[in-house]
Amino acid sequence: MKEDILDTSIPVLGKPKVPSPIASINDPLRSRSFVSDNERILLNILEHEVVEGIEAGKKCLSFERAGPRKRIYFDPSKLRCAIVTCGGLCPGINDIIRAIVLELYHVYKVKNIVGIRYGLQGFIPKYGHDVIELTPDIVSHIHEMGGTILGSSRGPQDIGEIVDALERMNVGLLFAIGGDGTLKAATRIVDEILERGLKISVIGIPKTIDNDIYMVERSFGFSTAVEVATHAIRSAHIEALGFPNGIGLLKLMGRNSGFIAATATLALRDVNFVLIPESDFDLEGPNGLLEALKRRLLERKHAVIVVAEGAGQKFFGNNKEERDASGNIRLKDIGQFLKDAILEYFNQEGMEVNLKYIDPSYMIRSLPANTSDNIFCGFLGQSAVHAGMAGKTKMLVSSLNNHLVHVPMHLSAGRQKRVDLKGKLWLSVLETTGQPSLKNERDD
Amino acid sequence: MKEDILDTSIPVLGKPKVPSPIASINDPLRSRSFVSDNERILLNILEHEVVEGIEAGKKCLSFERAGPRKRIYFDPSKLRCAIVTCGGLCPGINDIIRAIVLELYHVYKVKNIVGIRYGLQGFIPKYGHDVIELTPDIVSHIHEMGGTILGSSRGPQDIGEIVDALERMNVGLLFAIGGDGTLKAATRIVDEILERGLKISVIGIPKTIDNDIYMVERSFGFSTAVEVATHAIRSAHIEALGFPNGIGLLKLMGRNSGFIAATATLALRDVNFVLIPESDFDLEGPNGLLEALKRRLLERKHAVIVVAEGAGQKFFGNNKEERDASGNIRLKDIGQFLKDAILEYFNQEGMEVNLKYIDPSYMIRSLPANTSDNIFCGFLGQSAVHAGMAGKTKMLVSSLNNHLVHVPMHLSAGRQKRVDLKGKLWLSVLETTGQPSLKNERDD
Amino acid sequence: MKEDILDTSIPVLGKPKVPSPIASINDPLRSRSFVSDNERILLNILEHEVVEGIEAGKKCLSFERAGPRKRIYFDPSKLRCAIVTCGGLCPGINDIIRAIVLELYHVYKVKNIVGIRYGLQGFIPKYGHDVIELTPDIVSHIHEMGGTILGSSRGPQDIGEIVDALERMNVGLLFAIGGDGTLKAATRIVDEILERGLKISVIGIPKTIDNDIYMVERSFGFSTAVEVATHAIRSAHIEALGFPNGIGLLKLMGRNSGFIAATATLALRDVNFVLIPESDFDLEGPNGLLEALKRRLLERKHAVIVVAEGAGQKFFGNNKEERDASGNIRLKDIGQFLKDAILEYFNQEGMEVNLKYIDPSYMIRSLPANTSDNIFCGFLGQSAVHAGMAGKTKMLVSSLNNHLVHVPMHLSAGRQKRVDLKGKLWLSVLETTGQPSLKNERDD
Amino acid sequence: MKEDILDTSIPVLGKPKVPSPIASINDPLRSRSFVSDNERILLNILEHEVVEGIEAGKKCLSFERAGPRKRIYFDPSKLRCAIVTCGGLCPGINDIIRAIVLELYHVYKVKNIVGIRYGLQGFIPKYGHDVIELTPDIVSHIHEMGGTILGSSRGPQDIGEIVDALERMNVGLLFAIGGDGTLKAATRIVDEILERGLKISVIGIPKTIDNDIYMVERSFGFSTAVEVATHAIRSAHIEALGFPNGIGLLKLMGRNSGFIAATATLALRDVNFVLIPESDFDLEGPNGLLEALKRRLLERKHAVIVVAEGAGQKFFGNNKEERDASGNIRLKDIGQFLKDAILEYFNQEGMEVNLKYIDPSYMIRSLPANTSDNIFCGFLGQSAVHAGMAGKTKMLVSSLNNHLVHVPMHLSAGRQKRVDLKGKLWLSVLETTGQPSLKNERDD
Repeated sequence: MKEDILDTSIPVLGKPKVPSPIASINDPLRSRSFVSDNERILLNILEHEVVEGIEAGKKCLSFERAGPRKRIYFDPSKLRCAIVTCGGLCPGINDIIRAIVLELYHVYKVKNIVGIRYGLQGFIPKYGHDVIELTPDIVSHIHEMGGTILGSSRGPQDIGEIVDALERMNVGLLFAIGGDGTLKAATRIVDEILERGLKISVIGIPKTIDNDIYMVERSFGFSTAVEVATHAIRSAHIEALGFPNGIGLLKLMGRNSGFIAATATLALRDVNFVLIPESDFDLEGPNGLLEALKRRLLERKHAVIVVAEGAGQKFFGNNKEERDASGNIRLKDIGQFLKDAILEYFNQEGMEVNLKYIDPSYMIRSLPANTSDNIFCGFLGQSAVHAGMAGKTKMLVSSLNNHLVHVPMHLSAGRQKRVDLKGKLWLSVLETTGQPSLKNERDD
Repeated sequence: MKEDILDTSIPVLGKPKVPSPIASINDPLRSRSFVSDNERILLNILEHEVVEGIEAGKKCLSFERAGPRKRIYFDPSKLRCAIVTCGGLCPGINDIIRAIVLELYHVYKVKNIVGIRYGLQGFIPKYGHDVIELTPDIVSHIHEMGGTILGSSRGPQDIGEIVDALERMNVGLLFAIGGDGTLKAATRIVDEILERGLKISVIGIPKTIDNDIYMVERSFGFSTAVEVATHAIRSAHIEALGFPNGIGLLKLMGRNSGFIAATATLALRDVNFVLIPESDFDLEGPNGLLEALKRRLLERKHAVIVVAEGAGQKFFGNNKEERDASGNIRLKDIGQFLKDAILEYFNQEGMEVNLKYIDPSYMIRSLPANTSDNIFCGFLGQSAVHAGMAGKTKMLVSSLNNHLVHVPMHLSAGRQKRVDLKGKLWLSVLETTGQPSLKNERDD
Repeated sequence: MKEDILDTSIPVLGKPKVPSPIASINDPLRSRSFVSDNERILLNILEHEVVEGIEAGKKCLSFERAGPRKRIYFDPSKLRCAIVTCGGLCPGINDIIRAIVLELYHVYKVKNIVGIRYGLQGFIPKYGHDVIELTPDIVSHIHEMGGTILGSSRGPQDIGEIVDALERMNVGLLFAIGGDGTLKAATRIVDEILERGLKISVIGIPKTIDNDIYMVERSFGFSTAVEVATHAIRSAHIEALGFPNGIGLLKLMGRNSGFIAATATLALRDVNFVLIPESDFDLEGPNGLLEALKRRLLERKHAVIVVAEGAGQKFFGNNKEERDASGNIRLKDIGQFLKDAILEYFNQEGMEVNLKYIDPSYMIRSLPANTSDNIFCGFLGQSAVHAGMAGKTKMLVSSLNNHLVHVPMHLSAGRQKRVDLKGKLWLSVLETTGQPSLKNERDD
Repeated sequence: MKEDILDTSIPVLGKPKVPSPIASINDPLRSRSFVSDNERILLNILEHEVVEGIEAGKKCLSFERAGPRKRIYFDPSKLRCAIVTCGGLCPGINDIIRAIVLELYHVYKVKNIVGIRYGLQGFIPKYGHDVIELTPDIVSHIHEMGGTILGSSRGPQDIGEIVDALERMNVGLLFAIGGDGTLKAATRIVDEILERGLKISVIGIPKTIDNDIYMVERSFGFSTAVEVATHAIRSAHIEALGFPNGIGLLKLMGRNSGFIAATATLALRDVNFVLIPESDFDLEGPNGLLEALKRRLLERKHAVIVVAEGAGQKFFGNNKEERDASGNIRLKDIGQFLKDAILEYFNQEGMEVNLKYIDPSYMIRSLPANTSDNIFCGFLGQSAVHAGMAGKTKMLVSSLNNHLVHVPMHLSAGRQKRVDLKGKLWLSVLETTGQPSLKNERDD
């Protein structure tokens, strides 16, 4: 991957000429704290690689640092902002909404903020959804609740109609909270806006409970999801311990990447097998899961298996792909498949096992954010507002090496972050579980 | 029900002649606090019915009050006790084990206590399970964990072999923690013991997460189960609110009775339909669930449905009954059935709905007890020990009108407590949900 | 106590002639579920005492059962109701407010409900507090938050001015949520109402986090308070274990009674000394706390002490009593006193100890109710509405032997429930802690 | 600060020659995943500063990356390791102990591990504390409990005696979990070891609930502390809302730095004033806290104040400093001081206020770690073992820009990390609270 030639510059609607209202606050700390566009955060921070690159005259890959700009593009008194939330639920959406509204209202003095209802549907007249006026009072307690007060929906809508709606509503700055599908739609919305010559900025706040958006080190809600996943692991472990040859089988979220499964495993360290999409495994054969599971049961009398929903899709052969309204491939149910396969195997082996299968997905998605995500969502919302007010567009806010940065939308849209099988996360999982390779043939 | 002619007397192994060790504690409060067998708690406590009954010369139905007896039957220094846990997991099993061990050890000075592993299997030599010596050290933290440290199993075992094992192990007092199947087995174990002329007492501690054991006002773990069920209701509600025509469908435990579903509904009051085994309902027709649900969605755009796992079994017709290892009928999956029926109905109606189906069962069963159950389990364990040391047998400890009592095993075994459709619990559910009758024809 | 001659009848404003709206609900279950005034719940339910009493021709002490009456006194379409919350915070106040509003609005169709702000102050013009119109929308989420959305205050206000305000606002039915001081004030308000010949009903919902209101078996918020108190005990225990001769000293609520301290002790069983107002103890001398503590430390190297705030007030000698705005005696700080006394004692003994003192009081009072209290508050609120709509007055709703009943206000006001040192709660505490008598001289 | 000339090299006991046992694991992922000593993580990652530095020929400040080394120094079969925990409790200590033991035992096959009891006292014969053999079984559940299973103590001990004990016990590798005082002691221990020519490695795992150790981006337990601090903020807020002119005053940990106070404020956003040691404030005068508080109350009727324990020490004048056993200055109680000052001020102003003061410190320190800290502690423990086995010494494990690194002990010992008043944390606090400067005279 030739990352060093990627273009990471952020488009702007025009030159920011309006002094930031923050500059007029009578507090020297705040009026001196602006970030300039030439503050950029390095992606690769291994010293010898950086030094070698620079000495060879190469450009380092880096991203604009987020934060308040001294001059902004929009006149707060004339600006109307909109917020839309798309796709599945994820802990922290309401925190983001709240942070955006409070920042716009109290810091930038933008009083005209609307919430679009039920995702992109809310832009399309035929659905007849009203908008919600968003004020500090309305958002004051919403972070205590899960879900999104705006409602969401899946699936694409006509880009032209969406931009029509933005024009009709006179929206100058749109915050779009959503996943990969939303980023793709937002990219096309910006293109249509630019084609029409409109001065509308679109800022994305990447949402993915799976933590799998490219160039997004940490996505909001992930910490909460991992926390609750550990409760499910604890339940699976207790059920496994409770019966002779008890097996706790837990399916966790992770369509294309196993971050939740791998990370939750590290928290409790009671898991014996972690199956993720990135790491191929066999069922049958001497190294396959079934025999490895049998060895574990003979030795310790119980076992806990965590499987990410996107793992093992190879077992479903060349069935025709189905897709949901968001265009995501409808995954075959690997949890149910493994349950059946394990029960059949031990039945044939004449060995009594007690398998309990747990799928906590919807209980996790709808939770309020934990404290760590509360705080992180606050930073994301503030950063999104700073960027949007400065006239930046077609970008998303992200964290990188613990700093908040601006990432061009096109860089992330359509690409996925995956667990690095040679990285510290997965190696720590292997150390923790003691899980062997589950492949009969080495394909390294 | 002719309750007033029920025999509620408790069998005893023999006359208790040993002074209770409690009598020798140098604290006047404790040495004077014994309960006598003629303290009995009334079952029916409606004044006019009691007065009329007594004036008519009838006997009131009442139960022996639990508590320490002044004289006990067993000599603590020579007694060996055993504890066994059977059937599915339920919050609080470890609390009961802990309370029994601490009470036997510290209060009665019984030092010889064994735990039988994996339920009734643990008595049967062919399984080869060892026993565990139980001491205060071993049980000191177990209440912080869910499950049972002894392990459990389902299914009957040979009664003769069980009594053989009790004889061989020289057990004088057996505490059996289990559900209806266990009570039935325990009854037969006592009969076999009596037939063999042995002096072995068997005390039952009724376990049912469904809270459906007859003559048991409150079963341990129920409070915890309801608490966690409310979290699942909250998730279902948030998912329902999050999408256009969102439907949160939640399956809760309750094979024969809807106590968890009904009680959890009262805690949050965000549920619109509660379906329990005791209350028949139709799917089709003007009063049926589907049309009622449609009306709700048209009016409010979201709905939450809670269904107990034993509800609506009539929809599965006269399929052959299957039974699990415990002899329980394998219920057809009403949750999955309703999910399919609802999706098909709205598909035919051409109405977009977003249904999320949640089944949190195994996450609830394996939890540690909440504080209320911690406390209640402590009382149950202490009461079981007091009763057993006094030589009582073939009984279970129960609560009645907020008092702890002794209930003859045969009274509860094989019978079920069900939600009274005219009682305050169900009427409160109806007030809270505003749920109409879901029957097309009145069958009252 | 001559309870059998107590008058437990409930005053009514007049004969209830209006058919309950519940009667017109098209659901046979509900229209047949009314409770009649002659259903009464026995207080004493020990069989032999009841039988002996009745056979001797004595009247049993019993209380009217709560629940919907077939005919009500107020015309819902013309009624204005008010709710006021007084005194300190307690988990569940918002649940009660919510239950009252939802029941009045949805079941009785009373649409005119106001909330009085900041307790009795809200009735007094000079404070200038507005009222809040209460609707289902406003109360829909309030049970998720602690505190009271109405606000509260301490201290008496002029009874005449309060009744003036009720007249001026045209309130027909007042729900007063408060503690002993509030019950006393409410009693005087009713007297003034009757004197003026007004038709205003006053229903009390007893609030006491200490669970110490006379004739109130269980008060709302108590379960939550105990639950959170156990977290504090766990912290005290961990701190005690963490250092050589560690002492965890925890002060819990309980001005006049030790219910929270005693009950929380039973949940975790890690407490060694429980000090409550009902049980006198000495500091010095061979049986005193200090020497008992030293023995414990020498034997086990750590100790946990729980002290109710009202315990040991005798150590403060005959200092002048101070009272707070509610007229409650300002207690001397027994926690701080014990901390100092223990540190001084071990300092003199030349023994290193590590004492950590925890006072979690305000973190407990302000919590949202737990599930058990959610449900209980729902029943209390519904019962209060049923009673008030039926024209009953000068009463409070209470639970008794697990049933909801009506208790005349004057019976409870000014009297306290205390831990029975010979009852099962305290005896169980003694069994659990193994705590010896801490008195040098027996005064039994 | 001339960071670019700091020496960040890590001392080693000798050349590591033993092949790591990880190399022999039959899994290509693991046997190829070693980290080499020349992988170093940059501290400053702002692109233009890095480029300018390198182009000017300067050395960047960087730290060795943590991780498994291909060759190790110690022979696992002959090595004895020891773990000691010092100072106050902090969530996650048991997680670290568990991770170290599991990593040593399962990955490096070191079977001989001892736990030193009660901190540095455990090395000193006169205290007579035994050591604990640490095995996977013993540590399997300890992360579910707060505190430290080893016990801790404060205060220095004789360095010579400690090294004597290490020699006597034949310890080759010591893991010291503790705060700044422990790091200082460990530095001196290493110096004594080197002076005696011993081959004993000492690895520090920095412990500070305040998150204030220099060159340690994130300290374990901090996430948990912040999470629980938010509960206390919620309580303070609810109490403030509950009464006329309610003031919730909360004292949080933070002796020298306000990280907990500032970070927790960002999670809930219900705080109005945050007082930290880094930011001076006045009480009196037009800009002082008291008048600012009065303005807030007149405007909004309630206020929440969070004060770090080390804030405002200037108000205690030049009283003689007292120190605790660890040599920490005994801070004057700023919480109690503010409480008194506020009450007196409003009393003089004739304005009724209702102030509730909360100090949750000991309830926070003794908690088990949250999931985020569970995971982080696992990484720290594993990294410490990798470093120690490789023969590194006089270093601590730390995180930097989200990477785990080795920091020389002398760099951190005796220095403190403080909240940067111009950094994003504090600026975000100011945006969130809207808190003005509380200084009458600008001293910027």
